[in-house]
Amino acid sequence: MPGRLSSPDVAVHRNDLLRRYQAVRAHSLALAQPLSAEDQCIQSMPDASPTKWHLAHTSWFFEAVVLAAHVPGWRPYDRRFFHLFNSYYESLGPRHPRPQRGLLTRPSLDEVLAYRSHVDEAMQALLAGDGPADAAASLVELGLQHEQQHQELILTDILHAFSCNPLLPAYRRPEPPVLRLAGSGPAPQWLALPGGVVEVGHAGPGFAFDSETPRHAVLLRPFQIASRLVTCGEYAEFIADGGYRRASLWLSDGWAAVQAQGWRAPAYWLAPGDPRAPAEDWQVFGLHGVQPLDASAPVSQLSLYEAAAYAEWAGARLPTEFEWEAASVQPGLDQATGHVWQWTRSSYDPYPGFRPLSGAVGEYNGKFMVGQVVLRGGSLATPPGHTRPSYRNFFPPAARWQFSGLRLAKDAEC
Amino acid sequence: MPGRLSSPDVAVHRNDLLRRYQAVRAHSLALAQPLSAEDQCIQSMPDASPTKWHLAHTSWFFEAVVLAAHVPGWRPYDRRFFHLFNSYYESLGPRHPRPQRGLLTRPSLDEVLAYRSHVDEAMQALLAGDGPADAAASLVELGLQHEQQHQELILTDILHAFSCNPLLPAYRRPEPPVLRLAGSGPAPQWLALPGGVVEVGHAGPGFAFDSETPRHAVLLRPFQIASRLVTCGEYAEFIADGGYRRASLWLSDGWAAVQAQGWRAPAYWLAPGDPRAPAEDWQVFGLHGVQPLDASAPVSQLSLYEAAAYAEWAGARLPTEFEWEAASVQPGLDQATGHVWQWTRSSYDPYPGFRPLSGAVGEYNGKFMVGQVVLRGGSLATPPGHTRPSYRNFFPPAARWQFSGLRLAKDAEC
Amino acid sequence: MPGRLSSPDVAVHRNDLLRRYQAVRAHSLALAQPLSAEDQCIQSMPDASPTKWHLAHTSWFFEAVVLAAHVPGWRPYDRRFFHLFNSYYESLGPRHPRPQRGLLTRPSLDEVLAYRSHVDEAMQALLAGDGPADAAASLVELGLQHEQQHQELILTDILHAFSCNPLLPAYRRPEPPVLRLAGSGPAPQWLALPGGVVEVGHAGPGFAFDSETPRHAVLLRPFQIASRLVTCGEYAEFIADGGYRRASLWLSDGWAAVQAQGWRAPAYWLAPGDPRAPAEDWQVFGLHGVQPLDASAPVSQLSLYEAAAYAEWAGARLPTEFEWEAASVQPGLDQATGHVWQWTRSSYDPYPGFRPLSGAVGEYNGKFMVGQVVLRGGSLATPPGHTRPSYRNFFPPAARWQFSGLRLAKDAEC
Amino acid sequence: MPGRLSSPDVAVHRNDLLRRYQAVRAHSLALAQPLSAEDQCIQSMPDASPTKWHLAHTSWFFEAVVLAAHVPGWRPYDRRFFHLFNSYYESLGPRHPRPQRGLLTRPSLDEVLAYRSHVDEAMQALLAGDGPADAAASLVELGLQHEQQHQELILTDILHAFSCNPLLPAYRRPEPPVLRLAGSGPAPQWLALPGGVVEVGHAGPGFAFDSETPRHAVLLRPFQIASRLVTCGEYAEFIADGGYRRASLWLSDGWAAVQAQGWRAPAYWLAPGDPRAPAEDWQVFGLHGVQPLDASAPVSQLSLYEAAAYAEWAGARLPTEFEWEAASVQPGLDQATGHVWQWTRSSYDPYPGFRPLSGAVGEYNGKFMVGQVVLRGGSLATPPGHTRPSYRNFFPPAARWQFSGLRLAKDAEC
Repeated sequence: MPGRLSSPDVAVHRNDLLRRYQAVRAHSLALAQPLSAEDQCIQSMPDASPTKWHLAHTSWFFEAVVLAAHVPGWRPYDRRFFHLFNSYYESLGPRHPRPQRGLLTRPSLDEVLAYRSHVDEAMQALLAGDGPADAAASLVELGLQHEQQHQELILTDILHAFSCNPLLPAYRRPEPPVLRLAGSGPAPQWLALPGGVVEVGHAGPGFAFDSETPRHAVLLRPFQIASRLVTCGEYAEFIADGGYRRASLWLSDGWAAVQAQGWRAPAYWLAPGDPRAPAEDWQVFGLHGVQPLDASAPVSQLSLYEAAAYAEWAGARLPTEFEWEAASVQPGLDQATGHVWQWTRSSYDPYPGFRPLSGAVGEYNGKFMVGQVVLRGGSLATPPGHTRPSYRNFFPPAARWQFSGLRLAKDAEC
Repeated sequence: MPGRLSSPDVAVHRNDLLRRYQAVRAHSLALAQPLSAEDQCIQSMPDASPTKWHLAHTSWFFEAVVLAAHVPGWRPYDRRFFHLFNSYYESLGPRHPRPQRGLLTRPSLDEVLAYRSHVDEAMQALLAGDGPADAAASLVELGLQHEQQHQELILTDILHAFSCNPLLPAYRRPEPPVLRLAGSGPAPQWLALPGGVVEVGHAGPGFAFDSETPRHAVLLRPFQIASRLVTCGEYAEFIADGGYRRASLWLSDGWAAVQAQGWRAPAYWLAPGDPRAPAEDWQVFGLHGVQPLDASAPVSQLSLYEAAAYAEWAGARLPTEFEWEAASVQPGLDQATGHVWQWTRSSYDPYPGFRPLSGAVGEYNGKFMVGQVVLRGGSLATPPGHTRPSYRNFFPPAARWQFSGLRLAKDAEC
Repeated sequence: MPGRLSSPDVAVHRNDLLRRYQAVRAHSLALAQPLSAEDQCIQSMPDASPTKWHLAHTSWFFEAVVLAAHVPGWRPYDRRFFHLFNSYYESLGPRHPRPQRGLLTRPSLDEVLAYRSHVDEAMQALLAGDGPADAAASLVELGLQHEQQHQELILTDILHAFSCNPLLPAYRRPEPPVLRLAGSGPAPQWLALPGGVVEVGHAGPGFAFDSETPRHAVLLRPFQIASRLVTCGEYAEFIADGGYRRASLWLSDGWAAVQAQGWRAPAYWLAPGDPRAPAEDWQVFGLHGVQPLDASAPVSQLSLYEAAAYAEWAGARLPTEFEWEAASVQPGLDQATGHVWQWTRSSYDPYPGFRPLSGAVGEYNGKFMVGQVVLRGGSLATPPGHTRPSYRNFFPPAARWQFSGLRLAKDAEC
Repeated sequence: MPGRLSSPDVAVHRNDLLRRYQAVRAHSLALAQPLSAEDQCIQSMPDASPTKWHLAHTSWFFEAVVLAAHVPGWRPYDRRFFHLFNSYYESLGPRHPRPQRGLLTRPSLDEVLAYRSHVDEAMQALLAGDGPADAAASLVELGLQHEQQHQELILTDILHAFSCNPLLPAYRRPEPPVLRLAGSGPAPQWLALPGGVVEVGHAGPGFAFDSETPRHAVLLRPFQIASRLVTCGEYAEFIADGGYRRASLWLSDGWAAVQAQGWRAPAYWLAPGDPRAPAEDWQVFGLHGVQPLDASAPVSQLSLYEAAAYAEWAGARLPTEFEWEAASVQPGLDQATGHVWQWTRSSYDPYPGFRPLSGAVGEYNGKFMVGQVVLRGGSLATPPGHTRPSYRNFFPPAARWQFSGLRLAKDAEC
């Protein structure tokens, strides 16, 4: 999830940073706007967080990492907030237990918004005039990138919470009906890439997280990659063909999850016959509430296990993260970002020569580098401009509450 | 928790019932008044429920049990509420999972209050004029008694929720400081009762739950009972004497709970040195927030296990529920009600000849009669007039979030 | 489970005690004889214990409670055994964790048998000649009663272990086929008892556990009780009539257990169609392996919840433990003991005036007196002579691995 | 754990295969020889298996994969064994639940040994004379490699079981005391490797598992690697320096495990003051029982989390699996195998172009390729000749019951 500045090559212009700060911060409030104070308070599982907590935590980040270090004589807004709104920074002190974030009715939403305003005033004062020194500017940019990551989580987390409510409320009004393609859309093209020595990782300039660095060369074999994402219609065929009942298609942990959790479809699909969605066909719950399945839309809310099982069923495989990165800059590759994050077949390991930054922000990425799988691209919930070809998102292989789908790959034909 | 009319001896006057309905319903709203919409939405453990849910469930009870049966052509306010706000009545259909009540941000608090108003209007129309037939009147009275039980839970449940918040917010403003007695108060008197054949259970007239009936005779041996409740000061001596470290004082399941849960004091006591209450002595969290321990106040928030261990330590025992009932009508017995519920040494078994009512309300009490222990009396959170000497409250022996304490008893000296 | 001498009225004759010691100890070994060393080592759930552990623990009891206290200069056989084979006596030191008893491959079965022999020699020396003083004699008798309780557990625990093995091995060779009654046997008679003041509890002389004392008077209402136990055939009708699918028949905790555990029949019944028992009808797994259901045999391996649900379905109820005790001495009552323990509708509460013995043996019964339900009678696995009308067996209401069934009762007809 | 023949380049000589079969099979029995039937029956955690189960499962593998397919008219020894002794091959039918393997007292050890003999006779008949066809020969070799993997597990699993027994029994007699080096041994050398394009994976000829293929080129940066393993003495310094109390050293999941499991040292270290090992210094439990810590011996029984935290503390890092493989063939590198498996900083991902075999044996490796971390080398428990430079062992990062330690690496100095 996390990330950090690849320090040397940042060049942030002061005025730009102030405007950018204001825009990013305003976007978080805009995302919360359709939600009541009640909606913003709840937590539907330990992995998710309340909207209000996201709003407070992203402000805490600026206070703890920027203001406390770079504003002489800074006095904490409320010392208790350092405990309540820290997420996982061990070096910044003890934290409120993650599974109990949904019990924080106090501070109230109004109090959290007042906290945001207080932080915003101080930050804007810091960013005005000559602006901060380079070190601070890097941390501000890191804070904004961090807030953008939480903006995506605001959407995925409230969607999970609403999915637990039998009323299945809509985050947004349903859109007016559009003409939908019949079927799963045109067949994908297979783009052939030659492999060889390829440079991967952040090339600069501009911001990147530490996990994207250092840029380095890797050797790829020739491979093919699908020009578009797997669609809901194609995934429905996998289900209809017994995909969730055939152990041979699944990774061992994936098959165990299917059995233990009773998975039969992506997380928010409502089966034909579900009393909450009394249509004859599949329905899908999303930000617009319950909608009929759109066969041509990219499938989403998949675990890595499901993505890999689908690929096996389709006679293909998932791309590695480096294949994805190499392909992402090719003409012909559609839906690289803006739809769903795309599971790769790469574990989230450190790049050769990887070094986390010193200080508390050094906890941002490196300490999560085990047991996670890389997703590439970016989703409809990712703030525009936040992602890039070298961006490494990551989640545990069983995670299903993200906008996560897949693109197929295969070895080159000999 | 539950209960029901002992049918034959009810004599409810119509006008009285309307006024009583209005008063009881208004009291629930008054209890919710200090709480924000966020506060009213959360659930801090599966055994507790959100305030908003209590407000909706008690309204659902009137709709499902009274209005749907006694108003010709009644149309459900919202069919989905039958699913959301049923608690445990299997015969009234499926229910929303208890541990997920805290996720119901929708319907909003405003929508729940509108539901209450709708039910209130229909109920008041039913109760006006000639009023309902006797059968309906009995169910109305049952609904009011039921709502009074939930009024106590509104307080105990929000107190538990607030106890999970590091800010330890107060439900009510702290009261102005009062002059407190030094020490644990005067020693209790031992009242001696002769035993023999004693009538127990509800004698009528007036409302009682089915579990209090039939009235019947029991044989008691001579016994002694303390004139007052055990105080916080006395309980602090038990702690100081190693009460929580001496296995020999505890029931087997109680000792296991002490080990597994790390109990060291009653549920809401803050130990000296607790960072949330930086005083040198014990502090106690309650409806007024964190307060210094009042040594002369009755100890509260105890499990049956702790009450029994204390009694063992004190060289005494808990009274049986019948000893308590016989003693409760004696002059000399102080604090019979209005402070804390008093654990007895009686399991919650059916009385000889017990019969639940027919219909859905028959699920009210009988089906809980295993694995629970009887508490007698009534607490500061019990609505005035709700309890009586034959009243049988019950909770599992490990429950600690109620206003529950103890009174000592012992066998007669020979 | 436990128990203890009601001290004053014991009159144990010395020679008798030696012969009795030898007979009881030999019986334990005889019960273990059909089992391999492997069989005797395993533990199939935390509530059950390995046969080898039972053999060692009962020897430890004699060493810790009798020999260490009454043999001058007694030197422990192996100090580590005090840790390994203590069960729940907190005052006798720390204990090996109960769920890990099945990991004790060392000491080996041979070593445990050597330990038994060592204890037996010392005990027989103590019991020979003039024999022990009265205090010791009481403890010896307690140890023998204790061992008899474990003899029943040897059978119930190995049966549970074998029930987890897909091979469903038989503890004993199947008996030659006998002519079985068709159907559920003759209808039971309803025996009418007048109630009134009845003395219950141990009247002496002879051994009894402390929980059976003091003898005291209770008031009973007139009631009826079935002359025989409920049969497998009758219970199969309950199942066929949807007994496990009708919430209204069940205690609340019982219905939750049915849902959570997927109960559909008594613990060791194999449903028609079960691949382990490919017959068309119900099969029952027992000490003789898998056998066709005997419709006229008493139903067994029931929880209290199932017993109570059956009684509700049958339009009757369970007797209280005092009704059972009063009826047990009536002519006309069949199958009072020797078939299955009979669930009552009485929680296991202390009798008025109950006092546990002082010392470690005081932990025997009293500390279990919460959350348990009383069973009366005695089963086919109970050693002959071990039980009596005042005997109070007890288990948690969900326990299903005992030889536990039921007898119906009802209120007197007016 | 698993593996498979890289099919084309196998050249197994018939006579060799028969002798090799006999030798490998005999070694399993030799490993079981110090253990009683009781010892061989138990299972101390779901991840471990009883010795008897290992003996049966490895025989089942030959029966199910070789005999059933390559012996015309083969009749199953006991159909029930296909259910009992399958481990994870979904395509070969249902399986006995893994956590219940310790309940299989039947079939007895003697019966399992008879099963082994039966399989051995048939296998030897198949391997004699002209021997099997190439396809069968490949599967036989796979079966032998598979059995060797289980030979290591026989030792690690019984060691875990014995570690749960308060008596801490020794698998082998303690060896005569040897002169031990004082201190942690001489400082390691840092071997510098130039990186560049390196070929990794199995080069043939001879057996390899499918996961080691295809051989392929990778790009490495210049790096340094320690000439020897980290020792117990060095690890004790890490502990003494607060290694288990400093969050900043740990991966996030590792720190959570330290907190949740209470880790304070490697799995089988007994702290000074532990009542089971009353010496003043660290003791270590191993196959020879409890021994004083040997400061110069390689540290073992570490999770990946502990290995990575140690490396961080030491100012170094773990090598990637490819760095390890490249270094392993350098002169100067000591202790490459025969001591402990060596955690790498590489997740167990498929090699580019990886393809599992067709048929049931295709389940051997590929389906475990997520959430696991690669270990390289080989331990004192690995059968001689079983491992090689390209061998990829793997376990989840929290696993601590293996002979697993570490070797340090670092980036080349600029």
